[in-house]
Amino acid sequence: MKKILLFVFLFSFSTVGLAKPIEHPCLFISKRGASEIRQNLDHLPLLRKSFLETKKMVDAALKHPIEVPPPGEAGSYSHERHKQNYREMRAAALLFRITGQEKYARFIRRMLLKYARMYPTLGPSPYAHNQAPGKIFHQMLNETVWLVNTVQAYDCIYDWLTPEDRALFEKNIFIPMAQWFTVKNAREFNRIHNHGTWSVAAVGMLGLVIGNDNYVQEALYGTKKDGNGGFLKQLDLLFSPDGYYMEGPYYIRYALRPFFLFAEALQRSKPQLKIFAYRDSILKKAYYAAIETTFPDGVFPPINDASRTMNVEAVGVVIANDIAYYRYACNKELLGVAKMQGRVILNDCGLAVAKDFGDGGKIDIPRWKSIEFRDGSDGKQGGLGILRTGKGADQTMLLMKYGVHGKGHGHFDELHFILYDHGNMVVPDYGFARWINIEPKFGGRYLPENKTYAKQTIAHNTVTVDQTSQNKANSKEADKVSGERHFFDASNPQVQVMSARANHCYPGVKMQRTMFLIADSSLSYPFVVDLYRLTSETQHTYDYALHYLGQFITTNWKYVAHDSAQFPLGKQYGYQHLWNEAEGSGNEPFQFTYLYGGRYYSFLTAAQPQAQVFFTRIGAHDPNFNLRDEPAVILRVRKKDCLFASVIEPHGYFNEAQESSENPYPSFKTVKIIGSNPQGSVIEITAKSGKRWRIMVTNQKADARKQHRLKFGGKEFTWVGNFKVVTLSK
Amino acid sequence: MKKILLFVFLFSFSTVGLAKPIEHPCLFISKRGASEIRQNLDHLPLLRKSFLETKKMVDAALKHPIEVPPPGEAGSYSHERHKQNYREMRAAALLFRITGQEKYARFIRRMLLKYARMYPTLGPSPYAHNQAPGKIFHQMLNETVWLVNTVQAYDCIYDWLTPEDRALFEKNIFIPMAQWFTVKNAREFNRIHNHGTWSVAAVGMLGLVIGNDNYVQEALYGTKKDGNGGFLKQLDLLFSPDGYYMEGPYYIRYALRPFFLFAEALQRSKPQLKIFAYRDSILKKAYYAAIETTFPDGVFPPINDASRTMNVEAVGVVIANDIAYYRYACNKELLGVAKMQGRVILNDCGLAVAKDFGDGGKIDIPRWKSIEFRDGSDGKQGGLGILRTGKGADQTMLLMKYGVHGKGHGHFDELHFILYDHGNMVVPDYGFARWINIEPKFGGRYLPENKTYAKQTIAHNTVTVDQTSQNKANSKEADKVSGERHFFDASNPQVQVMSARANHCYPGVKMQRTMFLIADSSLSYPFVVDLYRLTSETQHTYDYALHYLGQFITTNWKYVAHDSAQFPLGKQYGYQHLWNEAEGSGNEPFQFTYLYGGRYYSFLTAAQPQAQVFFTRIGAHDPNFNLRDEPAVILRVRKKDCLFASVIEPHGYFNEAQESSENPYPSFKTVKIIGSNPQGSVIEITAKSGKRWRIMVTNQKADARKQHRLKFGGKEFTWVGNFKVVTLSK
Repeated sequence: MKKILLFVFLFSFSTVGLAKPIEHPCLFISKRGASEIRQNLDHLPLLRKSFLETKKMVDAALKHPIEVPPPGEAGSYSHERHKQNYREMRAAALLFRITGQEKYARFIRRMLLKYARMYPTLGPSPYAHNQAPGKIFHQMLNETVWLVNTVQAYDCIYDWLTPEDRALFEKNIFIPMAQWFTVKNAREFNRIHNHGTWSVAAVGMLGLVIGNDNYVQEALYGTKKDGNGGFLKQLDLLFSPDGYYMEGPYYIRYALRPFFLFAEALQRSKPQLKIFAYRDSILKKAYYAAIETTFPDGVFPPINDASRTMNVEAVGVVIANDIAYYRYACNKELLGVAKMQGRVILNDCGLAVAKDFGDGGKIDIPRWKSIEFRDGSDGKQGGLGILRTGKGADQTMLLMKYGVHGKGHGHFDELHFILYDHGNMVVPDYGFARWINIEPKFGGRYLPENKTYAKQTIAHNTVTVDQTSQNKANSKEADKVSGERHFFDASNPQVQVMSARANHCYPGVKMQRTMFLIADSSLSYPFVVDLYRLTSETQHTYDYALHYLGQFITTNWKYVAHDSAQFPLGKQYGYQHLWNEAEGSGNEPFQFTYLYGGRYYSFLTAAQPQAQVFFTRIGAHDPNFNLRDEPAVILRVRKKDCLFASVIEPHGYFNEAQESSENPYPSFKTVKIIGSNPQGSVIEITAKSGKRWRIMVTNQKADARKQHRLKFGGKEFTWVGNFKVVTLSK
Repeated sequence: MKKILLFVFLFSFSTVGLAKPIEHPCLFISKRGASEIRQNLDHLPLLRKSFLETKKMVDAALKHPIEVPPPGEAGSYSHERHKQNYREMRAAALLFRITGQEKYARFIRRMLLKYARMYPTLGPSPYAHNQAPGKIFHQMLNETVWLVNTVQAYDCIYDWLTPEDRALFEKNIFIPMAQWFTVKNAREFNRIHNHGTWSVAAVGMLGLVIGNDNYVQEALYGTKKDGNGGFLKQLDLLFSPDGYYMEGPYYIRYALRPFFLFAEALQRSKPQLKIFAYRDSILKKAYYAAIETTFPDGVFPPINDASRTMNVEAVGVVIANDIAYYRYACNKELLGVAKMQGRVILNDCGLAVAKDFGDGGKIDIPRWKSIEFRDGSDGKQGGLGILRTGKGADQTMLLMKYGVHGKGHGHFDELHFILYDHGNMVVPDYGFARWINIEPKFGGRYLPENKTYAKQTIAHNTVTVDQTSQNKANSKEADKVSGERHFFDASNPQVQVMSARANHCYPGVKMQRTMFLIADSSLSYPFVVDLYRLTSETQHTYDYALHYLGQFITTNWKYVAHDSAQFPLGKQYGYQHLWNEAEGSGNEPFQFTYLYGGRYYSFLTAAQPQAQVFFTRIGAHDPNFNLRDEPAVILRVRKKDCLFASVIEPHGYFNEAQESSENPYPSFKTVKIIGSNPQGSVIEITAKSGKRWRIMVTNQKADARKQHRLKFGGKEFTWVGNFKVVTLSK
């Protein structure tokens, strides 16, 4: 099927060829589009605002001398300058097209003249670290981004330039740069990876502008033109059938830009390709899958290598939002995203958004629903589950990861979860260990601690077995396996549930995690029920980790505080970075309350024989102070089969400025495991009010209609389907 | 003079007596005032908003059963319930007067009936800890607050109640409560302290309402009526002639309420006392001195025992603001404060503010100027200096404390400073060690760590000598001494300076600190120059501490990170709470950069022979996780005479979400001590741009006209006055 598709593409493409003359600009904006924007500037507020912001940036740039400095370190002044240069050239180009003012074109020309002088003198950057090097930048990635932007600028002034100028720029910059990408760094170019996407977009767009068919074909099908690399293969393999991107939300936010810009350029020059329809409109799914992972405040959840603050205002998301709006069904939710973004792109797509947006008065911020994404290009490699409840910005969101590892940027974090509540990640993901673009912090690159801590299993809210990361923290091994979807049911807004397995992270250990998000009228806030089941033929140490932010308030266990001498909790797999601040043990249910963002959060977990608890803080073996010093609670048991049955509950209120506090104590009293066997698990949780919930979950193959009948302690438990939650009293 | 004043007061008071019949309400609102408010509700937005908020709160209370629970622990439900009860009674009382609706009066009556039933059954609270106990509350303080509020409610419904009701309430609640304060706890009542002020306000206001002259006299002159206790003595002694409150801004925010409420009540019942004119209008000065210490965001600087978030929206500040506006010159700046507060009080004073406020469109948020407050009731016990530069919320503020210790809530922190910049305390004060009103945290009381850490010298941005706190952390000793003003000059907005001394904190060690806030057009942000001079006949260890928030970025010194085992920095005086995360030593200038709130901050200090540096983090010997884990840098030298000459500089920009960073490196290259002797100190600082500043400061008695002529290294330095800053080049 896929082969046939590719064939059709190759065929349709080659028959049409690049015969007809190119009308510039052809990539992002057309002459007509520019003219329509000019006519609409005055009465479309969002368009006007976006135009004025762009104008302000470029007009400021016009006042300063143009700088094209010699290449520098990542995050250095030179690095940032070259980034700003391509932003300014692209923006000036759009302004030239919209306003017709030649000063913008002259600015681009003068800058390109400087690049044309410098570029031929450059060799591979000496600042690369295990990266395909650029020449202007330390890594080729940045250089492809440079070209994606600059070629759009070139496209806009193409007609305005003299043939001599064009010859110079192509000879001194564009052709050698494309050669650098496609010949010297063909491996990077052909990678099925966001770096590959930037590369093909850059070269493909260049091909469209200068009429080089070869470049376009290389971009679409890889340098060997056999379809094993290139844009289409990327569209085939980097997304699941649901559009979920294997590297995760932070990187799709970055990759959206080349995906949508190149697709838009192809649509304009080669509409017969129907690129937006490709693979059942995979680009549409990709964009929705990206924004539907966001927290209610528009921030992307920081799973895998990711910052904690990247949000829908990012330039790539703005580009994708407007193009997706224009090229697909003009879905009103995307106008809501535009409201969060506060701007549109300056082309026909942005114009369409701005028209339908009006003054924004009637546009609502989108509130996404609970959703599950299948992962893997075949959709069979686990997934990502998101449960949501509540309204507006105060939505509570529970996310569990059980998909693919995610290659180079993947973390060893199967069955990891994030809890977002009251405007904050309250059970957070650490994100990456990187001070992005801060030059004194290793050039703003990924820090060594990203590998030694942030990627490791213990840095996540999941179970670490035998103090060893999943797949021994070997990316290649982890990429071979994935989590497995078990069941996902968000049909009842009061009781939503997702369940998944990870059986290939630890030899001989099977893991199943079932997470409920329950909104019960007897409690002020929704709560989480977590059933994490591990089974093995042999004994293991199971470390259940809960990372938190804010202040330790109380625990019910006695513990010893290591408060006059402090040592790391372990030697490797991230444990070496955790100070063991305190530890305790007990046979009772363990309870812990912390305070964050003006709300209390209580964790309560069922008794386990001879369980231990460690209160940790990040910071050990971090001589350069690269990590943030965040706390965690780690519950340790040594067992063959084990069920961690827990409740996590937001409660109460604290406002220091007003000196008021309410409900600092949790509502739940006990969590009790009734039983757990290969057929199913049954637990009961009891609130202080007397209200009880019995929760039953299947541990067998998911089947919504199957009858379950279990006996624990002489008592029979029956239910139909994958799970059942019963309120027992009050 | 003071005696004569007192005599005049006693005389004028006794001749007028309490002869004429009392028209209720008489304390806070009058019948006429209530009627005017009613008439203005519809067209004064701020009044209307305040009224509706009050109404919303009380109407909600009316829907629930009245609860008067048995007394409980500090911060417990009972504690909070009784606090809410008095808030609701007072608010309902104002609504009754404004709307005439009897449901509000009935609500108060029903609640008082419950108190009348319970109160006689109560003995001293068993929950008191080294505090004068209350009966309803664990400490008498809360009970006096209860009475201050409740007596206002009683005042408003006095006429409406039957004589039987009144007799019951006075017999069962008010009279025994007043007896509890004035007889059983006369010492607390007579204290020249905010507890005393609450006590006298409560009893005095009760006296005014029920016509008990004896209570009023006890309130004004102490239980012995000799003027050694009571309201007037408090007005004499608790404020400096500039109105600065000896306990500091956080506590004056709290004490403003009884001061202004009682004064307002006296003004209404005894206008002949001219209480608002007392001691050259000390209450006006007190209020201005309070709000003029605030950071640009309206938060009070947390010097002494204080939270970090208390701000001008606090109820006491709203009360004082409106009363001060009405009773003094209707200063427009107070309308700006009302804008920050977003509400007014529901009496004539609030009405006056609301009238002049209008819709607020033309009202500016006040921007305070640089100011120095003399401390001590005689104004001769040092002071508090505040330098400000910049506009609006982005104002930079530098505060230095060199006044009195501040009694029970004082910290051992002479010559301590706080730097506020870009909306944050960037060189912060820890504030108190207290999770206020969080019951699981020691009932929300002051924690043991408040004494062992937060009060100690090393917890502050000053120099700790021989790893021992000032006055050996003995409050009584510290209360005997104070800092000394040296000079303060904010006349040149480009170069502002304050200098002070503390010669009685450490036997045989004299200290002088001079701090500049310099706004130079060659730099993006104002910078601080700090000259901390210590002199002694004998060798001492001088620990210069700089507390910070945020992330360690870089330092220029090599250091050893204690990253596989961590120990406290010392054994006592707060050092036992600091983990020694890393240490280094050097003979070069020491430079350190951190990142906070999207801006970089760099500290650079002149070379000292064999200096050591410690990078610390709070958390050692804190078994209950009561402290926040904040970092500090401590520079240690061992010397007789020592000058720490440093620059602190904000620079650059980081926005993680936008992945952009600028200027992560400081502008300054060197700080060099040219010389320092008993006559003066001369230093030079050099920016990387080449620009140099020579800074000269007198170490002699301040004299704005004195000629100075110093020789260091064969070179002569001359200037006139207390200081001189010269730009040398570029």
